[in-house]
Amino acid sequence: MAEQLSQSELDYPFKLLEYINGFKISKVIFTASQLGVFDLMLQCQKALSAECIAKELHTSQNGLERLLDALVGIDILDVEIINGKALYSSTDVSDLYLAKASPKSLSNMILYQSQDIYPLWNFLPDAVRQGRSQNEKAFGTSSKDTCETPFRCEEELLKFMGMMHSTWVFAAHDVVTAIDLSPFKTVVDLGGCTGTLAREVCLVYPYCSITVFDIPEVVKMAKKHFCGIDDCITFKEGDFFNGELPEANLYILAGIIHGWEEEKCLQLLHKIYAQSKPGGGVLIVEAMLNENRRGPIFSQLLSLNMLLQMEGKERSPSEFFKLLTTAGFKDIQVQRTGKCYDVVLGIK
Amino acid sequence: MAEQLSQSELDYPFKLLEYINGFKISKVIFTASQLGVFDLMLQCQKALSAECIAKELHTSQNGLERLLDALVGIDILDVEIINGKALYSSTDVSDLYLAKASPKSLSNMILYQSQDIYPLWNFLPDAVRQGRSQNEKAFGTSSKDTCETPFRCEEELLKFMGMMHSTWVFAAHDVVTAIDLSPFKTVVDLGGCTGTLAREVCLVYPYCSITVFDIPEVVKMAKKHFCGIDDCITFKEGDFFNGELPEANLYILAGIIHGWEEEKCLQLLHKIYAQSKPGGGVLIVEAMLNENRRGPIFSQLLSLNMLLQMEGKERSPSEFFKLLTTAGFKDIQVQRTGKCYDVVLGIK
Repeated sequence: MAEQLSQSELDYPFKLLEYINGFKISKVIFTASQLGVFDLMLQCQKALSAECIAKELHTSQNGLERLLDALVGIDILDVEIINGKALYSSTDVSDLYLAKASPKSLSNMILYQSQDIYPLWNFLPDAVRQGRSQNEKAFGTSSKDTCETPFRCEEELLKFMGMMHSTWVFAAHDVVTAIDLSPFKTVVDLGGCTGTLAREVCLVYPYCSITVFDIPEVVKMAKKHFCGIDDCITFKEGDFFNGELPEANLYILAGIIHGWEEEKCLQLLHKIYAQSKPGGGVLIVEAMLNENRRGPIFSQLLSLNMLLQMEGKERSPSEFFKLLTTAGFKDIQVQRTGKCYDVVLGIK
Repeated sequence: MAEQLSQSELDYPFKLLEYINGFKISKVIFTASQLGVFDLMLQCQKALSAECIAKELHTSQNGLERLLDALVGIDILDVEIINGKALYSSTDVSDLYLAKASPKSLSNMILYQSQDIYPLWNFLPDAVRQGRSQNEKAFGTSSKDTCETPFRCEEELLKFMGMMHSTWVFAAHDVVTAIDLSPFKTVVDLGGCTGTLAREVCLVYPYCSITVFDIPEVVKMAKKHFCGIDDCITFKEGDFFNGELPEANLYILAGIIHGWEEEKCLQLLHKIYAQSKPGGGVLIVEAMLNENRRGPIFSQLLSLNMLLQMEGKERSPSEFFKLLTTAGFKDIQVQRTGKCYDVVLGIK
């Protein structure tokens, strides 16, 4: 996203207009996903007219045709005009990442971004003015409710878990292979949610025993909606802030540290340190900021999102170093993946 | 925006994630504009710390710092770290297009997009399902109110006019030079709003006499907020649907045709044809679609916006040809500019 804004931008603000229109592109993809456009197209495996798709999905033809055209305009769908009639078809990208039936589908993330995050970001000016979460203004809940109680309702919790699942489906492999974790024979993923990241640890390190530790409501939903019969991971119910931690050689904190204020992060890291044996470790997985503040834009946007939604933030390597050494960890190893999420390992 | 989604996207969905995050980029720019970040930076003409900017703009430092970093991440601002302290400065692009004091500022467009269009696009699924405007759902007004009555209130009208002004400030020159208009000695810009496009006609064709024709409320506001002392254009109050049209060799319809349903467009074009003398013409200015439906994405998004907001749509050259020939015009000339807005000229 951070292409250099060139001199030609001064002649005509193409890139700025693209940024200004960014929310429309997001909503085009979100809407097509919510209406089931990508699912129908994967299912049919042939080019379809707007009329036919509109009929199947119970939408207007007029509106749907414009939506399909915009998806063609950003290369998410393809179109061919035969005898004056436009026939739309899916692309490899839409089949792989947008159709709900694909194991790599981002549809859960899209639903969460569309229904929960898009309206929340309308309050970004207030968040920056006040320096705090705007959940209450957007949805009538405080940031505490978002994290500590089991979300607003079961449906909302499932949507959030779906988003986490989507994320680790595409991001887990780079994360668990960034540093060799084979020395750690027992691993506990604290706040491991659906277990999607944990399953990737199993796959890459088959001799490792791995447990997902999360609050009872999450574990219940994970078992109901995100587990197969011969699952390679174990679930354990508990509260990592208030209860005891299971024993392990390695604790994973993926997308946990960025949600909480400094004091609570340190409290959790101290607790992990106390529970660890010498040689044991903690692996933090987050979208890391650059020291020079010039990016990555993905991490910078996530840090703003944390401001809007929770009480935490994203961090640079030096900030993680400080956090981990304060908690007592040594031999700190930072590994960037070149993708969205990076890792930091600390050893007791 | 329509870069080819390459094979590498199948390995990792970078571009899709960029699209999914598009709304956050928009809101980062909108928020900085609304808080006055770009104005302060143009005014100071030196690098400033987040602490200093936050103090001047009465915001939290925590929130503002993240906002500034994200602006650096998309190359809208610059940063330098001196003795461990981050100092932010403006860029040529932010000074030219984002600071309110710049004559080329897009700040009015940004305010309108942020406050009126962003919330409206949250209802895109409903618009596609129902095939019609969602103004009522978003703001409690019907599409009729948006166009026919003088908007919701004076403040809203001024915001809309500011947006039109921003648009023609950067887009007018390409539009009025796309086709040689020097044969037309008297020009009337129907629904010419602030007169910004009309002034560019004056500048390029100094021997041309040009009148902006718009409803009384708009003319009043244009004279109050958008006119200098020695303005080169004349304003005339009236209603192009219900009243008489002033005489002219050329009628301009810039961003008018795309707002209305087919029948009303034809009614207006018939009226212009009837009022024209042989050799007289009509110049339509719109963001034109490609015949092959593959773009431009700017026009495709605008067409979806028309669905959400009004009752019209964007069109391809062949659709404009049909519209103009049906109304009686001939010698139809379509000229693309390679920028956002294109032109179609029809002659009686």
